Amino acid sequence: MAIGQASEGPALAVRGVRLAATRAGIRYPNRLDLVLIELGEGTQSAAVFTQNAFCAAPVTLARQHLREAQARYLLINTGNANAGTGAAGLQAASRCCEAVAAAVALDKRQVLPFSTGVIGEALPVDRLIAGLPACRENLAADNWEQAARGILTTDTRPKLASRRLQLAGQEVVISGMAKGAGMLRPNMATMLAFLFTDAEIPAASLETVLRRAVERSFNRITVDGDTSTNDACLLAATGEAGVAATEADLAEGGAFSTALQDLMQELATGLIRDAEGVSKFITVRVEEGGSVAECLKVAYCIAESPLVKTAFFASDPNWGRILAAVGRAGLTDLDIDAVSMRLGDVRLVAGGAIDPDYSEARGQAVMDQEEIEVTISLGRGQVSETVWTSDLSQDYVRINADYRS
Amino acid sequence: MAIGQASEGPALAVRGVRLAATRAGIRYPNRLDLVLIELGEGTQSAAVFTQNAFCAAPVTLARQHLREAQARYLLINTGNANAGTGAAGLQAASRCCEAVAAAVALDKRQVLPFSTGVIGEALPVDRLIAGLPACRENLAADNWEQAARGILTTDTRPKLASRRLQLAGQEVVISGMAKGAGMLRPNMATMLAFLFTDAEIPAASLETVLRRAVERSFNRITVDGDTSTNDACLLAATGEAGVAATEADLAEGGAFSTALQDLMQELATGLIRDAEGVSKFITVRVEEGGSVAECLKVAYCIAESPLVKTAFFASDPNWGRILAAVGRAGLTDLDIDAVSMRLGDVRLVAGGAIDPDYSEARGQAVMDQEEIEVTISLGRGQVSETVWTSDLSQDYVRINADYRS
Repeated sequence: MAIGQASEGPALAVRGVRLAATRAGIRYPNRLDLVLIELGEGTQSAAVFTQNAFCAAPVTLARQHLREAQARYLLINTGNANAGTGAAGLQAASRCCEAVAAAVALDKRQVLPFSTGVIGEALPVDRLIAGLPACRENLAADNWEQAARGILTTDTRPKLASRRLQLAGQEVVISGMAKGAGMLRPNMATMLAFLFTDAEIPAASLETVLRRAVERSFNRITVDGDTSTNDACLLAATGEAGVAATEADLAEGGAFSTALQDLMQELATGLIRDAEGVSKFITVRVEEGGSVAECLKVAYCIAESPLVKTAFFASDPNWGRILAAVGRAGLTDLDIDAVSMRLGDVRLVAGGAIDPDYSEARGQAVMDQEEIEVTISLGRGQVSETVWTSDLSQDYVRINADYRS
Repeated sequence: MAIGQASEGPALAVRGVRLAATRAGIRYPNRLDLVLIELGEGTQSAAVFTQNAFCAAPVTLARQHLREAQARYLLINTGNANAGTGAAGLQAASRCCEAVAAAVALDKRQVLPFSTGVIGEALPVDRLIAGLPACRENLAADNWEQAARGILTTDTRPKLASRRLQLAGQEVVISGMAKGAGMLRPNMATMLAFLFTDAEIPAASLETVLRRAVERSFNRITVDGDTSTNDACLLAATGEAGVAATEADLAEGGAFSTALQDLMQELATGLIRDAEGVSKFITVRVEEGGSVAECLKVAYCIAESPLVKTAFFASDPNWGRILAAVGRAGLTDLDIDAVSMRLGDVRLVAGGAIDPDYSEARGQAVMDQEEIEVTISLGRGQVSETVWTSDLSQDYVRINADYRS
């Protein structure tokens, strides 16, 4: 069961983008499992992919196609990751791209493949190709919800978000969708996310603006510390709004950059609120660090500690486990007397020991909430970082023991 | 429930060592929770302690006492970790040492305190001191099982082991005990372990031989990746066998060194077989690595992956999750075509893809066993390393959600 506010749209249409999903029977019958997204002529695209050395065949192929041609179609299937499948997997992904390209008289390199699902099984290419005509017939500018559903695996609800902004007095739109409920972890890209805008964005700037926003959104969430072999985050700019984003719009803090980052944070935290077995949404904020790296070290050490996560699941204000996670994060010369900790607004620890004003009842009141913020102040610098995570429940174990992913 | 063969002794007596445990009511009534161990005059001791920056008061004090005096008593309590307790915690630990020292007319620095249990609560010093007379009266050379029970927390059975060996034609004994069922992770010392020998060992060599054996035993196990604030591993040599270990005995591969390491591996794997919620004992072996560090990186990435661990819990030969963990371990220039993987004797993966002879039935037959070995060959060097771990079960979550540790 997902918690908190959903981010399910409706999404705003993006000129130049049409979408469709169908039931191709990839792994399960009667389930939306094949998505086709069409991008208008002149669309510029950039993407970041998993850093897992065992990356899946579609990741290898999408990387290559993106380098060599202008992407016009995204083809996404669930139910099968086409990972750990060797040369046969690459051929399978390539055949799917060919099938799309042949139907619309384009080069196969203009089709980017994405897969998510079980690792190590052969992609059922014939079933996938058989589903393509239904996808093409259904392509529509308002099919966002259907497409967002079509990319889900263990997610319980779609994640869709939109932003409307003005560039040079003209309205442009950014809309996106994401999926992923476990195997989420930083270092990109550990889910599927597709972002579209009708603004015109120079190809050279697209990747920079995407990478920066990923760093502040999808690279700041974790469920179980696992990184997938598949999965990618793509940003496509169709340019059909007829207005170009300027360098200032695209720079850090610029209008476009800020709106994109904000939208991606909404999607990223939406993934956590629908994480496998989630019952708590936890914000881990590390303040007064000496560097981004050390803030993140501490934040992830807390966010990925099974003992901390089970305490959150139990609504137990077990601050000792959080402190232990801070202590093992491996910071050089950490002065524990300078460290303080808050749970929500309640100060728990100062000077390496419990705050005299703290009471179990005050901690319990915070832990009983569904959304909880933990703040660690390291007392050794000016840098802050935030990471979002979920708790570790018996349901997480049940889901991952039952589901062959 | 623990699995596999227990390592419960009986332990061989070690001349110069007497032990006792009592029910001091530290946290729960009617539970052995206070242990006193007496070491003969002339005993040499060395210890390694947690590397957690938030180390507990007894760790700080034991380190200091060990530096300044010759240890004659070990005082161990469960039920309260005396961690996150600031200056008051140090005073509490010191008062306990004083109470032991006063009763036997020694310096308080000759008493080493050890605590394990809940973090962040004040140590009930009065109850602890009130339990001391019963401990002293019960001191006996054959009280190993009682003492091994007295140091347990969520463990379901004591861990005791002994070795007998000949040095210069004379028999010497090594006996030891350990506790710890969660929060086990490398980087020492993440449990309590006490090792005793009646061999004479020069003080200068003791720490070296201990550290080397720890590196191959307690530093090669992991349950949940968490490192405790407390916890220590101590080796005491009473010298009462009247024979000294030579440099050759103590060197890598020497008689004493080998026996100690072997005993410590028995205790360390015994901890895993009794880990919280364990249903599988998993040996992760990484071969053909370029260095110890990279073998361990891969081994721990597998051993600490929640997705891998839940697959083991489900007896699911989900090799894709193992492959994904290898791929995200962060090895530079990993050639995935050189990687192969075996589950027990069954070859699963070669050349980055599934072995053509592999069948689900063969993988399932291995996964159905209680003790499972996973072997990864990296194909880039000569180094091998082994790490032992448990699966991740719903019981692990239940235990850690219920138990305030």
